[in-house]
Amino acid sequence: MPEFLKLIPPDDAKRLLLQNIPANGLVSEIIETVHALGRVIAQDIIAPHPLPTFPRSTVDGFAVYSDDTFSASDSQPVYLSRVSEVPMGTAPSFKLAPAQAASIHTGGMLPDGADAVIMLEYTQTVSEREIEILRPVAVGENVIKIGEDVEAGQAVIPQGRLIRPEEIGGLMALGLTHVQVVKKPRVGIISCGDEVVSPDKLPEVGQVRDINSYSLAALIDKAGGESIQYGIVPDESESLMKIARRALIECEFVVITAGSSASARDITVTVIASLGKPGVLVHGVNVRPGKPTILAVCDDKPVFGLPGNPVSALVIARLFVIPVIDHLLGLPTDRLHPSVIAKLTTNLPSQAGQEDWIAIRLVNSPQGRMAEPIFGKSNLIFNLCEANGLLRIPANSTGMSAGDAVEVLLP
Amino acid sequence: MPEFLKLIPPDDAKRLLLQNIPANGLVSEIIETVHALGRVIAQDIIAPHPLPTFPRSTVDGFAVYSDDTFSASDSQPVYLSRVSEVPMGTAPSFKLAPAQAASIHTGGMLPDGADAVIMLEYTQTVSEREIEILRPVAVGENVIKIGEDVEAGQAVIPQGRLIRPEEIGGLMALGLTHVQVVKKPRVGIISCGDEVVSPDKLPEVGQVRDINSYSLAALIDKAGGESIQYGIVPDESESLMKIARRALIECEFVVITAGSSASARDITVTVIASLGKPGVLVHGVNVRPGKPTILAVCDDKPVFGLPGNPVSALVIARLFVIPVIDHLLGLPTDRLHPSVIAKLTTNLPSQAGQEDWIAIRLVNSPQGRMAEPIFGKSNLIFNLCEANGLLRIPANSTGMSAGDAVEVLLP
Repeated sequence: MPEFLKLIPPDDAKRLLLQNIPANGLVSEIIETVHALGRVIAQDIIAPHPLPTFPRSTVDGFAVYSDDTFSASDSQPVYLSRVSEVPMGTAPSFKLAPAQAASIHTGGMLPDGADAVIMLEYTQTVSEREIEILRPVAVGENVIKIGEDVEAGQAVIPQGRLIRPEEIGGLMALGLTHVQVVKKPRVGIISCGDEVVSPDKLPEVGQVRDINSYSLAALIDKAGGESIQYGIVPDESESLMKIARRALIECEFVVITAGSSASARDITVTVIASLGKPGVLVHGVNVRPGKPTILAVCDDKPVFGLPGNPVSALVIARLFVIPVIDHLLGLPTDRLHPSVIAKLTTNLPSQAGQEDWIAIRLVNSPQGRMAEPIFGKSNLIFNLCEANGLLRIPANSTGMSAGDAVEVLLP
Repeated sequence: MPEFLKLIPPDDAKRLLLQNIPANGLVSEIIETVHALGRVIAQDIIAPHPLPTFPRSTVDGFAVYSDDTFSASDSQPVYLSRVSEVPMGTAPSFKLAPAQAASIHTGGMLPDGADAVIMLEYTQTVSEREIEILRPVAVGENVIKIGEDVEAGQAVIPQGRLIRPEEIGGLMALGLTHVQVVKKPRVGIISCGDEVVSPDKLPEVGQVRDINSYSLAALIDKAGGESIQYGIVPDESESLMKIARRALIECEFVVITAGSSASARDITVTVIASLGKPGVLVHGVNVRPGKPTILAVCDDKPVFGLPGNPVSALVIARLFVIPVIDHLLGLPTDRLHPSVIAKLTTNLPSQAGQEDWIAIRLVNSPQGRMAEPIFGKSNLIFNLCEANGLLRIPANSTGMSAGDAVEVLLP
């Protein structure tokens, strides 16, 4: 293929791309915490006050002065006089004197004078005015102290953290009903090809419907970006140039899926090269599927020329586009990618020197979790629909064997 | 704890709950495919036509009649006369005669008379009108036949499939710009507690902000449900009964987080028991955290009484609420839950006979991926924020040892 001067290993290609994206700092916005699920914290969250704000009981029982319980046992109970009950939701209006005990619920506030709570199970009611204590308790036992969860001024959630239900809970606990998050990077999507028509059209003979605009948009949105459609463009320099320039101005980066022919790919690379400096960094990646991938940075914004084949486009977008979204969101580069271990059902030969990504169907069987490679003549979209995992065969491997335990990435 | 008559193992509790939810069939709606990411296919998708709809080349090269190339080799090339180029996006206007070859691009339509494509690399241009063929090609080589991806009438995506970018691509390829999906189950959330105030309020001494309404809503929405807030209710039967009845009518199921005291939990179970038949199925699960969990089905709708502690509430919601959402969405019960294998950093003793769920911080180290248990006096919300995984210690285990390879679930 004369168009490829040099095939670069995927990891090197990704590194080269990320190195060339200028560190402009994160762009942030303030939104309501209730809408923050899946967004990314833009600035360390500092606790405005301690948690809890008052000493709380962690059990149902009696608030006591621990010294009073020192010698208590089943055979030699300590007798304490039972005073008021601690109400939920307000401070107790009384102070506990020595040799007194006050009924308290989980979450209730310790009255002054008490320094521990004895669980209900280790007490016995003698009368309305007296209880027996059957075990000693230590100072602070069954109590959360002020600031024990969080101290005032403590950094509780770091910048770059993806907001999950847990973080929403933590923010609400501190009264932070608004939160500063990283703005979603806008990603312009352009689909090239003389043969490509909109999915709502009935294709004429020789035409195919646009898949990439929609599958890539879903992938980008799911990864935390904001996809913007720029439509279908014929394999022709001027039209592509015009729309690509507009997308590059309006978005944080641009993804172009090339027309499928070699000449269409030539048009794509020529247009990308002319969009701005430094221009094309990688043209051709040593990976299957997805060899004819173009990675560029133009006017400080990433530009991708993905293969037109819908399967290649999706696999390559997972390899290169998602890491760029992660990068622009300020997510940690070593974040976990979920995977499962499964047993390979067949031999998978692979050409050494080339990284392969194989679509895998994971199946639970009596022999455990099995990884069935999905073979298909030509990477058809419905083969990919059948898959629920991807297996990487590294460049230095000549393949894997049936029965091998392999790590299957869950996309 | 007198309120617990019997602690049921979590798996048994889940089975009992799911068995008691009547099989009413799935409720579906038709939406635009572009908005279908994360939704669930309600009816098998049947291909309205084959894919591809015409024979397509998978490479750049020449469309030929395979018999013509039978004896071709580098030393003994076959000479074919070069005719028109196949245009992209329309049917070729010509028919290929024997001993002819037509230039064709990846994705182009085979002209009548051609039955294979020879890759550009295995040809040589002699003149504008003649090429050399250096290899033989077999019938169908480098061609996708009509219907080779999908036959007309074939079931291509099954009911119960979660819609990913791949499915969106497949639907668009078939022109299915609208899709029938399962309606999101509406889940009513009620937060109980005399001490609980809204997060936008400054709590008085003795009060705490509502966490559960928001963390549970985020969890439910993320799992494909539609959370509906019914606010904060004091620990008092009549108020809770009124709001719970309304939620049960308006939603597919209801989640109540109980007040934290034993008496508040008693109110919750009494109210749930009176909401409808069959009523409370489980009161107390043999799991930590989350023992005081109530599982019920009232008037054929699931009702949950979750512990008031925010950590317990989230862990228990992952164990019981999400499987019910999966069930109501018609998702397969054995779907994969992503996990990673990591090395435990410390010993984890556990009481035999009780299932434990431990919050884990996964850390990449030079020794590989490590699983650090997060210990905390009392399951504080910010401990859970520090975690990025959960480790299950089964009831029949007395714990795990430092250095063990453990499977950590990624929540």
